[in-house]
Amino acid sequence: MTRRLHLAVAAYGVGGPGQHGLWKDPRVPKNASIDIQYYIRQAQIAQAALFDAFFIVDSQFITPDYPSHYLNRLEPLTLLSAVATHTTHIGLVATASSTYNSPFNLARRFASLDLISGGRAAWNVVTSFDTGTSRNYGLEEHLDYATRYGRALEAVQVVRGLWDSYEDDAFPASLDDNQFLDPSKLHALNHVGEHFSVAGPLNVSRSPQGQPVIFQAGVSEEGRNLAAQVAEGIYAPGGTRAQAQAYFSDIKQRATAAGRDPDHVLIFTGASPVVGSSDAQAHRRSREIYDQDNDFDRKLGFLGRSFGAYDFAQHDLDAPFPDVAHLAEKGGRTAGQAIVDRAASQGLTLRQVVETLTEYRPSPFTGAPDTVADAIEEWFTAGAADGLNLRFRALEDLERFAGDVVPLLQKRGLFRTAYEHDTLRGHLGLPIPENRHSVRDQEDFPRGGFA
Amino acid sequence: MTRRLHLAVAAYGVGGPGQHGLWKDPRVPKNASIDIQYYIRQAQIAQAALFDAFFIVDSQFITPDYPSHYLNRLEPLTLLSAVATHTTHIGLVATASSTYNSPFNLARRFASLDLISGGRAAWNVVTSFDTGTSRNYGLEEHLDYATRYGRALEAVQVVRGLWDSYEDDAFPASLDDNQFLDPSKLHALNHVGEHFSVAGPLNVSRSPQGQPVIFQAGVSEEGRNLAAQVAEGIYAPGGTRAQAQAYFSDIKQRATAAGRDPDHVLIFTGASPVVGSSDAQAHRRSREIYDQDNDFDRKLGFLGRSFGAYDFAQHDLDAPFPDVAHLAEKGGRTAGQAIVDRAASQGLTLRQVVETLTEYRPSPFTGAPDTVADAIEEWFTAGAADGLNLRFRALEDLERFAGDVVPLLQKRGLFRTAYEHDTLRGHLGLPIPENRHSVRDQEDFPRGGFA
Repeated sequence: MTRRLHLAVAAYGVGGPGQHGLWKDPRVPKNASIDIQYYIRQAQIAQAALFDAFFIVDSQFITPDYPSHYLNRLEPLTLLSAVATHTTHIGLVATASSTYNSPFNLARRFASLDLISGGRAAWNVVTSFDTGTSRNYGLEEHLDYATRYGRALEAVQVVRGLWDSYEDDAFPASLDDNQFLDPSKLHALNHVGEHFSVAGPLNVSRSPQGQPVIFQAGVSEEGRNLAAQVAEGIYAPGGTRAQAQAYFSDIKQRATAAGRDPDHVLIFTGASPVVGSSDAQAHRRSREIYDQDNDFDRKLGFLGRSFGAYDFAQHDLDAPFPDVAHLAEKGGRTAGQAIVDRAASQGLTLRQVVETLTEYRPSPFTGAPDTVADAIEEWFTAGAADGLNLRFRALEDLERFAGDVVPLLQKRGLFRTAYEHDTLRGHLGLPIPENRHSVRDQEDFPRGGFA
Repeated sequence: MTRRLHLAVAAYGVGGPGQHGLWKDPRVPKNASIDIQYYIRQAQIAQAALFDAFFIVDSQFITPDYPSHYLNRLEPLTLLSAVATHTTHIGLVATASSTYNSPFNLARRFASLDLISGGRAAWNVVTSFDTGTSRNYGLEEHLDYATRYGRALEAVQVVRGLWDSYEDDAFPASLDDNQFLDPSKLHALNHVGEHFSVAGPLNVSRSPQGQPVIFQAGVSEEGRNLAAQVAEGIYAPGGTRAQAQAYFSDIKQRATAAGRDPDHVLIFTGASPVVGSSDAQAHRRSREIYDQDNDFDRKLGFLGRSFGAYDFAQHDLDAPFPDVAHLAEKGGRTAGQAIVDRAASQGLTLRQVVETLTEYRPSPFTGAPDTVADAIEEWFTAGAADGLNLRFRALEDLERFAGDVVPLLQKRGLFRTAYEHDTLRGHLGLPIPENRHSVRDQEDFPRGGFA
């Protein structure tokens, strides 16, 4: 099968991280983050452009200096359920924490979304990484990496087990036999593991895609291993093309080592394209956007997120970067350690750390439509991405990408010209997982040896 | 203010308890319980008839002999979020367990539904009562009554606290002041209680109705007290009019004793009307329905639910009712004890218990449209109900009630002839709860003594 590019859109309202100033953009309603119609419109535009998936990130802890979108937002599954009935084809990827949800609740809610959407749901598994979030759930300190990732792996296994509670032919609803359910096709899970004990069965049947797709975003060692073991879609950090290639091949190798088909582990690299009438115009626009977002206090506040919602405002901005190495474990460890190392090796002040981290770096996908299409083709063919997870500023920017860049990708044979499937698994070329109980039945009853 | 009748519809798919045989009804799609369009149509019909609310019950544990609807269903909040964007006025009441959900997750999801629906969400607080459910959440035995209800009360208090995280004017989004959020209007909760520690704040702002409405269904002593303390809508068991009156006055007294306005504690009595062209025809139809549902094995299976999902099929049907008194605590205690007492005092066999419990008893709301309207008026004026929580079999039965009975209730001045409000609180005549932080600010800053 020819390898095909995949496109997802990460939907925001008034602006997520790196879009601090988006609320000032007159094209974006001030309440866009909590306006369900704003999300429905984004999904419909992305669907009209034949995108694979519509993706909702999540965060469960805020401080007043967080990005505007994080401050006030809809819970992802609740949001996507509303979007589901106003769309017909695009995949719906909701972020949910395996640390702060029980597997039975997760299994029910994603299975429900999968039925409501006709087989278009996906779960983006996150482990949640800050102390601020843990304090919303009764824990003074969040769980350490090993526990969180062990729990995440087991949670995915339990949830998948629950999703197979009913075989596909479990409901004959036969008047002749006076039988609604065939009880032999309903299976309890009776899982007893290190982190969870879950009996089941789940009271939700399977959708046309069998099970929701599993997404993950792994950067740390534990995260990469989890992604390689269970993820079917991976949200990869952007960075340079060389960095993306290194991440891509690392994950594909780990997946292969874990006995999986690397083509069934699709890497969506994060990208914030800026499309202009010319390369120069696009770069001017890119710089304007940077300046609009350049809110030092908010960047300083958001920096704390990598250190367990640490409050950096208590420190002198022009003194050496404070000693917060021990806090990296409380936040995004990999990111936090990189910041600490950089500050130490370059002798940076707190102000310099913020400015260096957020210095102007135009997206590799900045330019006239042909330039952006060239960059996407290069990343795709060079093995830096199976697809892109695109972030736009306003609906108009998504529309422009859909109208000007997508047709170029189609002309080059990289992207579909019509939906060929009705489910997210179909779009992604992922097989429908056979129900584990049906498979067992087939093994019990050999098909005979006809050649 | 004139007292007004309220109407809710409890939406099912192929049939809940007491509707065991509904899947055989050719008017009902076999997969109605998981067909979101079936729910959307019900909600739209009920809204066209100016109903107050659309209600989704829940259950998290099944055995193969449970009613057809329980076997395969959508999670209530996920379901109602999809319904929200296809309706404009009707309230949306989702059942969720305070025992198996964390308050922070509940607060987020209901606040999201409240925003998505424009102020029409309500939480029906249940504590979940069977061992089967607890085993889906890692507990061998479910929590006892006192713990479950203590937890429920604290959960409601925490959730309400989180719902007030943002004052209503927290987001000036002012370009002049370069201020998106006014940080002084964002409040952490910092709750530390017996069952929960929750820091907050919640990252969801309030809807036009301030906070989702709290519903509850209390039958036990603990349940009635919880209802009287926190519920604004109460789902009451049906039974006879005298039983309903006794329940009604008991709850209103408890609410008054708890210092609440009894008019802000609305009692919705469960009713399954059967409307016919004549009283005789309606009663014939009622008997037909009973016969269609009369599935002994399923009734036997469902009886186990009052005793912690106990399997009665292991007993001789014609031997004395087994000694299961000690199991009543594992299920619906009040119902279980009543069954045990009745079996003992009347010397019933297991078969007789099932048959007695499910013997033919036509609904008091069976008859020609005038007869049904008379009964509703009587119950309403006699203080047996503030409203009815109506259950129908097929969409056509809801349509018939809407077309034939609702106009009679309107002619009698009992029921609204147009929606006068956009929110569920508005329909129910409930005040919008003032944000606790805004109230405190007003107290800190007296308004002066102008007469």
